This record gives sequence, structure tokens and C-alpha cells, in this order.
Amino acid sequence: MIKKNYLLSPGPTPVPFDVLLEGARETIHHRTPQFVSILEETLEEAKYLFQTKNNVFAFLSSGTGALEAAVANLLSPGDKAIIVEAGKFGERWREIAEAYNVNVVSIKLEWGEAVTPEQIKKAIEDNPDAKVVFTTYSETSTGTVIDLEGIAKVTRNTDVVLVTDAVSALLAEPLKTDEWGIDVVVTGSQKGLMLPPGLALITLNEKAWKLVEQSKNSKYYFNLKAYRKSYPDNPWTPGVNLIYMLRKAIKLVKDEGIENIWERHRVLADATRSAVKALGLELFSKRPGNVATAVKVPEGIDGKKLTKIMRDKYGVTIAGGQAHVKGKIFRISTLGYLSIFDTITGIAALEFVLNELGYKVEFGKGVKAAQEVLFKEVGQQ
Amino acid sequence: MIKKNYLLSPGPTPVPFDVLLEGARETIHHRTPQFVSILEETLEEAKYLFQTKNNVFAFLSSGTGALEAAVANLLSPGDKAIIVEAGKFGERWREIAEAYNVNVVSIKLEWGEAVTPEQIKKAIEDNPDAKVVFTTYSETSTGTVIDLEGIAKVTRNTDVVLVTDAVSALLAEPLKTDEWGIDVVVTGSQKGLMLPPGLALITLNEKAWKLVEQSKNSKYYFNLKAYRKSYPDNPWTPGVNLIYMLRKAIKLVKDEGIENIWERHRVLADATRSAVKALGLELFSKRPGNVATAVKVPEGIDGKKLTKIMRDKYGVTIAGGQAHVKGKIFRISTLGYLSIFDTITGIAALEFVLNELGYKVEFGKGVKAAQEVLFKEVGQQ
Repeated sequence: MIKKNYLLSPGPTPVPFDVLLEGARETIHHRTPQFVSILEETLEEAKYLFQTKNNVFAFLSSGTGALEAAVANLLSPGDKAIIVEAGKFGERWREIAEAYNVNVVSIKLEWGEAVTPEQIKKAIEDNPDAKVVFTTYSETSTGTVIDLEGIAKVTRNTDVVLVTDAVSALLAEPLKTDEWGIDVVVTGSQKGLMLPPGLALITLNEKAWKLVEQSKNSKYYFNLKAYRKSYPDNPWTPGVNLIYMLRKAIKLVKDEGIENIWERHRVLADATRSAVKALGLELFSKRPGNVATAVKVPEGIDGKKLTKIMRDKYGVTIAGGQAHVKGKIFRISTLGYLSIFDTITGIAALEFVLNELGYKVEFGKGVKAAQEVLFKEVGQQ
Repeated sequence: MIKKNYLLSPGPTPVPFDVLLEGARETIHHRTPQFVSILEETLEEAKYLFQTKNNVFAFLSSGTGALEAAVANLLSPGDKAIIVEAGKFGERWREIAEAYNVNVVSIKLEWGEAVTPEQIKKAIEDNPDAKVVFTTYSETSTGTVIDLEGIAKVTRNTDVVLVTDAVSALLAEPLKTDEWGIDVVVTGSQKGLMLPPGLALITLNEKAWKLVEQSKNSKYYFNLKAYRKSYPDNPWTPGVNLIYMLRKAIKLVKDEGIENIWERHRVLADATRSAVKALGLELFSKRPGNVATAVKVPEGIDGKKLTKIMRDKYGVTIAGGQAHVKGKIFRISTLGYLSIFDTITGIAALEFVLNELGYKVEFGKGVKAAQEVLFKEVGQQ
């Protein structure tokens, strides 16, 4: 049978054909008025993605590069920062901070839990000298979304800078950077932005820039002052073709409308959650988000085999669990350029593989539950 | 919501990305050893598609051009030919034959019926002066396949030349041109071949060439003697980029294996038939084939609206009925580059639209029936 690729992983996500074609355009020289004009237009339009009036900077790196840029630019060795660790990407904040000799105060939670504004408030009260709070808006490793708006209410009228990793959350979860008062937001390209990996974006407000001015950390490639100085041009070689693709992707985002995109992710995630519950499976997250639905692998089933058969036999790439939940959960993404039929495909494939592995489910039962959600949201409009 | 395009129409069908990319390669000059060598290789490999040792000729036209080529080259004005009319494409044979002043003996059947070898045998006995029998292997307008192998047994040891329109059937239905003794086979590119529209292919054996030698019909562009003379080169400008694409498509076909491809179409069509029956719908064809499943529009439902909503709201392009069955049937294709999830998508979309139009079906019921067939054929391997 023909095996098409269905990318239901929380990054990389499918890239629309029109965006791919932009990547196939002629690479022009980056130090030309022609390219700088494209870059300027693209970075200006990128503000829409974050719902901010502040400048957005783009560099060639994975999302981790943007996380490092935030740490390296906001702090100095010995500075105190609060970090929420409730999954793989919260841990990454800590690892980077430790690499920069930051004095880390960790809010360590069980995987699948979501930090609350109250917990942030308490950590700040307990650590009045903390300069930054590092959060993960969507903890992709557990399929959990935090109450970022609520947390921003805590930090907004303090000197503490609120940083959020929106690598997977951008466009998948509502995010109003300026209105909510998020000081720094970082993201990557291969997620909601519908691009291949390779670009990282960061935006920061005046409150954050004040910390940048004081930072004594060693840094060069990710030195935000260099990016600010050369803006809209790039201090180092920019990703020419990825910028073409970003420009096109932002156009698609604007055409669809950011509220519609947030809603689309919510609907697909609702359908997925409803489907897996109908199959008798249990959600892993205590506060499930719209990036990916993390599901507990049922008793007696080999979780690694499940994701492997999904991918190798059916062409459906979902994500397994990371670190200590490896083999214990799987994650079906609803992130990025996906149609309702991509979600139905994921559920149908899951039904095939569960049966194949001896966890008997009635065919169509999960699909039916997904269809019912989708019909209510889409069919009856 | 994101609306992706799902081409579940019996042509055009989805073109694989790797084939599309061949179409994007540099157009070289056709009168060069470089291009003629590509053409020669491609036409040689094309024999595999027909399971023939005879030469295959390719010209720039739709499938209708290949039908005309057969009529124009095999007959002379006043010659008698037997034509099977059991749908739109049987009628097309008659229209072309009449345009060439052929003396047409029509086996006219109800749409949805399949001509039998016995009916062909009787027509030949009744018309001993008939030179050609024109058949439609897959009558796309009704989703019907004929017993071509059985019909060839009737004509094989006579002077009558058997021509078949395999425009939609090629690769979707088993076809062994030489082994069965089919004298002339014609096809088009935008069907099982997974190409955009634009190329027509024809192959004929020595028995057919004898008729070509006698033909006094006026013709120029489709004059097969000109193609034979210049072979493998083309007498007129060939479709350079379409030939690149054809070469790649044949490679994909050979990699998959033609028997596997026939089987793939059978499985997807079986799943589709099972699904629509589970939804309480009725098949239109008396002898359903694997190109497309023709389904009667249920009482009280507007068939044109059904296909329109499928396409405009869900992005799923199926075919409606043509001529006098317009609005009365719809056709879900299983032709070409389709995965099992494309078929599931088509059924899920149908369930949405039937409910939307007031024909209440249980969500997932058709999908389940399709999944059961697919699991038996694919999942348990």
C-alpha cells in the first residue's frame, strides 16, 4: 500500500506546499538592499505572531538557541532566576541556566502538572532577589499548558522579567504578549509556524532590555545587542531561504487570522482528547493543551512499539515519551498545518495499531468521538 | 480550519511530490540526443505498464486524443465497428467513430451494466464484416469494469481487432495486454499513472498495425505511422517535462510492483464499497470496479449539493454523476496515489456531509467498515 507521511508530531510539523516552494526560490545575497528589504518586511510582520509592538529578532538555530539567547542576554553569573521544571523543556531551562552559572531556584513539579500563578507568586516572594522567571508555555513533553496570562498578572507589576518558551505554543495556544505583559517570548520555526527547523525567533520588551544592558554573560552569536544594532539586518549570515519561507508562512497566518488558528488547534485537540477517551485511554496531563495530546500507554502494551508501528507501517509519526516516561506515554500532535482529516487519520491509525498490539478496540469508536466534536465545531457552521 | 485538497476523483488524481519535482526540472530542447535518450528509455519502460513487448507511443493530448488516434488509424470511412455503450466513455467511442464516418454497430446497455464476452461474441457473429471492437475497460462514469480477459478470448483468434480504453483502468485493474491478447490499449496520464493531464499513451500489436496500413482516414497529428517512423523520437514536439514526470512515475510503479498496485486498488475499492454499504447506501454498478465506487444518492438528498459540500467545505473532491445520472449518483475514487487514510478521509467526509444534508448516519460507521477491510488486508500482515 502507498504510505504517505503524516506528521502528527509536535515538531517538525507539515510544511505547506506554498511555503516549501518559497524555499526553492533563488538564494540571493544577504548583504543587498533587496534581501534586507525582505528581512525588514518579514520581521515587521512577525510582530503579529506574538501580538506585540516590539521588535522580533530571527536567528539561524533550533529553538534551544533562542532559549540560550534569553538566558545569556538577561542574566549575569550568580544572578538568581526562578525556573519551572515540569517536563523536558523546563529542565532545559535549568540546564542552560546552570551552564551560565545562574543561581537557579527551581519549582519542580511532577511531569504532567502545570505551575499555577500562585506558585509563581510564592516563589517570587520567597526570592525577592530573583531577576527572571523562566516558564514553558506549552510543556511539549507532557502535553501541558500553563496559565501564562495568570502568571503574567503576577510578574507584570514587579521588577521580575517573565520569559516564556513558546517554541511549541506559538499559534497553538492564545498568546497576547503585550496585552498580558509577557516580557520575553522565544519560539522555533518547525512548530506552529509551519516551517522546517532552522529559525528561532525572540521578542523582548523594554523591561527585558534593561536586564540585557546589565548582563555580563559571555556570548557572541546570540548577543541580542548585536541584533538590535543591525536591525532589521542580521549581524551574521541570515537564513535567506528560511526567511522567504517565514515571510510566506506569516502571510498564510495572517490570511487565516490568528484567533482562527488558536481556535483550530483547540478544536483538533478537543477531538483528539475525546477520541482517546472513547478508546478507553487516559490522558497524561493534568492540564492538557492544544499542541499535543499525551496519552498513557495502556497496561501490557509496548509504547515504543506502538509509535514505531504507527510510523513504519502506517506512515503516521506521533511522538513517544521522553526521559522517565519513555514507553509510558505517546503524544498525538495537533500542531501546525493539519486538517481535520489529519486528526482522523491519526485516530484511525491508532485504532489499527492498538488492535495489532492486542489492545482490542472497536474500529471507528475513536474516530466517531472525534467526528462528533468536529461536526459540532465545523460541520454545523 | 485548514482545508487540504483530497483528490478522490477518477482523474485527475494526486501527483506524488517526487513526480511534481521532475516537472520542475529544466526544460531541455527536444531535438537533442539528451532528450531523445530520455524518451527512448521512458517509452521502453512504459511497456511494463501495459505488460506488453510492443512499442508504446506517447503524445501530448488528453485521453480523448488517444481514443481518436485508435479510431482514426484503424479504420476507413464506411468501415464497420462494434462499440459497447454502457456509459459516457462508451458513448465517446461512438461519437468519435461517427465523426470519422464509421459504420457503427452499438451494443447499447443500461448505465451500470457490463458487457459480457457472450454479447461481444454474438455481435461479431451478427456482423462478420466488423473490423474492430471498441470497449471501455473501466467505464468511469458508472464505476463498472468489464471482463476484458474474457472478451479477448472471443476476439483473439478472429480477424477482429480488440481495442480497449484503459484511460482510467491502467494500473487500477489487472491488465495483461500480450498474455490476454488485447490488440490496442489507450490510456491517459492523470489517472493511475499519477501525472497531471497532458499525455496520452497507446500501444498496438502486429494485428492492429495491419489495419493501420489499410486505413484511409484523414489524420495528421495522431497519425501513428508518423510516430512509428520517428520512434523513439516524436514526430512533433513532445511534452518534455511531462516525459520527465512519466519516467519518474514509471519508476515508482516498478518499485511498487504492478501486481501490488492492482491489489492496492482492489483493497481500497473493497473498503470503500464496504463503507458505503454500511452507511445504508446502494452501489450503482452491476459489476463494480476498482477505479471508482459509484453510489446511488439516497432519496431526498441533492446529489449535486453533496459533491459540492464535500469539495468546498471539506476539500474532498469526489465525482458526481454525468449526463442522465447527474445528481443521482456520486463516485468516490480509489485511483492512483492514495493511501488507506485517503480512503478513510473520503468516508469520514461523506459521513459529515450526509448528516449535514439530513441523511442521518452514525458517525464512524462507514469508517469502521472500511477499517475492518483494511485491517484484514493490511493490518494483519
